[in-house]
Amino acid sequence: MAQLTIRVKLKMDLKILKRLCLLVLMMGCVQAFGFSSFVDSTAVQMKGEGKFALAIHGGAGTIKKENMTAEQEAAYREKLEESLNSGYAVLEKGGTALEAVIAAIKVMEDSPLFNAGKGAVFTSEGTNEMDAAIMDGATRNAGAVAGITRVKNPVTAAHAVMAKSPHVFLMGRGAEQFAEEQGLELVDPSYFKVDMRYEQWLKIKKSEEQKLDHSSLLQMEMMDPYFKDRKFGTVGAVALDRHGNIAAASSTGGMTNKRYGRVGDVPIIGAGTYADNNTCAVSATGHGEYFIRAVVGHEIAAQMKYAGKTLAVAANEVVMKQLVEMEGEGGVIAIDREGNIAMPFNSEGMYRGYIKEKGQAKTFIYKDER
Amino acid sequence: MAQLTIRVKLKMDLKILKRLCLLVLMMGCVQAFGFSSFVDSTAVQMKGEGKFALAIHGGAGTIKKENMTAEQEAAYREKLEESLNSGYAVLEKGGTALEAVIAAIKVMEDSPLFNAGKGAVFTSEGTNEMDAAIMDGATRNAGAVAGITRVKNPVTAAHAVMAKSPHVFLMGRGAEQFAEEQGLELVDPSYFKVDMRYEQWLKIKKSEEQKLDHSSLLQMEMMDPYFKDRKFGTVGAVALDRHGNIAAASSTGGMTNKRYGRVGDVPIIGAGTYADNNTCAVSATGHGEYFIRAVVGHEIAAQMKYAGKTLAVAANEVVMKQLVEMEGEGGVIAIDREGNIAMPFNSEGMYRGYIKEKGQAKTFIYKDER
Repeated sequence: MAQLTIRVKLKMDLKILKRLCLLVLMMGCVQAFGFSSFVDSTAVQMKGEGKFALAIHGGAGTIKKENMTAEQEAAYREKLEESLNSGYAVLEKGGTALEAVIAAIKVMEDSPLFNAGKGAVFTSEGTNEMDAAIMDGATRNAGAVAGITRVKNPVTAAHAVMAKSPHVFLMGRGAEQFAEEQGLELVDPSYFKVDMRYEQWLKIKKSEEQKLDHSSLLQMEMMDPYFKDRKFGTVGAVALDRHGNIAAASSTGGMTNKRYGRVGDVPIIGAGTYADNNTCAVSATGHGEYFIRAVVGHEIAAQMKYAGKTLAVAANEVVMKQLVEMEGEGGVIAIDREGNIAMPFNSEGMYRGYIKEKGQAKTFIYKDER
Repeated sequence: MAQLTIRVKLKMDLKILKRLCLLVLMMGCVQAFGFSSFVDSTAVQMKGEGKFALAIHGGAGTIKKENMTAEQEAAYREKLEESLNSGYAVLEKGGTALEAVIAAIKVMEDSPLFNAGKGAVFTSEGTNEMDAAIMDGATRNAGAVAGITRVKNPVTAAHAVMAKSPHVFLMGRGAEQFAEEQGLELVDPSYFKVDMRYEQWLKIKKSEEQKLDHSSLLQMEMMDPYFKDRKFGTVGAVALDRHGNIAAASSTGGMTNKRYGRVGDVPIIGAGTYADNNTCAVSATGHGEYFIRAVVGHEIAAQMKYAGKTLAVAANEVVMKQLVEMEGEGGVIAIDREGNIAMPFNSEGMYRGYIKEKGQAKTFIYKDER
């Protein structure tokens, strides 16, 4: 067989040889000019793979159009788009889902608009304590941190715990010490303090001390658009990469005026953050205590795995039925290996968006937007 | 109908009235002499309910008969029995599953034999940092604490978080401050220090610094029976009460020489501790990182709920298959509303036991005991 091939080759005339050389040269050019990922994706997509997608959320709560100015709305949409584009850039060139969710979340952590990183809400002690988690659907490796106060991007601390420690979950000063050893960017705790969040905290602290009635609280919400997400601020991202792997990550400053030391659902693997290639990747945002008790992320995955439900049906069942029955307000973003995305929420609104291969970022805030 | 009854009663002669008085008097005596729960349980059992049961574990690991002296073995069995009897006393008189798991765990926390409360292992900084969690299957309320150093019985702190705070999970000094406000018994951190645990820590610290090879570590295990459970020490309890409710609780000092701030699976609702009347109550013990990633407790519950598996099959599937594939060593104890108990483990041994209505405590340590 080999001999035959050699004989055939020897018989090829010079013209064919030249053409072959030209083809090889062209392929080299394509690679050299950075078209490789395009070529890869086309090839893989022909096999039904190579799709990629990213979904993000920036928190759920009583977010109503009438409480937002056009400027505020535009600012949120712009930052959501920036986050989506940042993750897209990673995925488009063949980066991993893990890298994409980190890139997307960092944009929101760096923005004072969201309750994560800079702009985190204040604890009852007037400090900023942040939690974050990340999970890799391919390996089910995971990392989480809670109660950190000095790491600029908490999601990078969660990733370092996953990638560089034998542990999954580190808290408080131990987590910070580890982040420091890993060379992550540290900042003075004052970096996270944003004046409007601080004033919001002072108001809530006062209202909780004075035990204001519900209508007074509603009035405050009307007056202060930042009051609305006092409970449910979180950011999160889920992604599917060209390699067919999914990942999830979440980051939060927790609840405004939360008791010092309170940990929400974000760093609880299975609750606020979960990913498994066999089912889905989920990031949740809402009243964390209910999300922990309902093991929200893993519950959606389990309904897909054992009850044969689709991502959309399972996510809907958990958010619109199970959580509603428990009076657990909030929502999730979820993605599966086919690139299906679900973003159900049972609150007034949820900052959210998604982007797929075509690169068109779609953002939504209110309930009636589809 | 009522008139007829009255007329019949009026026609009753004095003898019958006397007999009735006697009967009422007897019933009063039964109650007065504390037989009430016996009467209750008989009545309820006739309806197919009123069963109760308790299962506990005291950690899993490389626990081999050849490494234990008869005295050590007897000490463990005695303490396990004491724990079972303590929970039994609660259940027998109609107490709740929640109360029973707390009672059972307190006995093990107070004993230096187990890696929880007194006798907790040391962190890499030479401190004792404890985690605990509890969950009520009837309401799916839950409470958890992590990284506490001064609460005598960590399980009571977890219960206080569940019962007295709006939160599910409190960590570190915030958790301790809360426990103090709730009037829980606090002790000086030195209370938890047990010399043999401290020496064990010094050895492991040395071995990890010197990067001893596996055979040297094995030799150390042979020499030091307390070395064996350096990774997997945890205590836990699951119970079914006469009212048909189930609950789970766990408590631990974590891993010997663990990084300061490391949180294991114990306080992660859904992983190391989970309870839902609709499925089962679970407490896990093992290499916590794997148990978090596999969301062990909720995974067992989900297989029962959505794949229709029995408690035994689901628990076995997760511990003997899923965890083994991930190389996650350890085991679980689990109970359902029928009083079925499963106690699978994939390690050499697991301190464990159960007790049912008849009050006969059964304890087991090694693999071949049934």
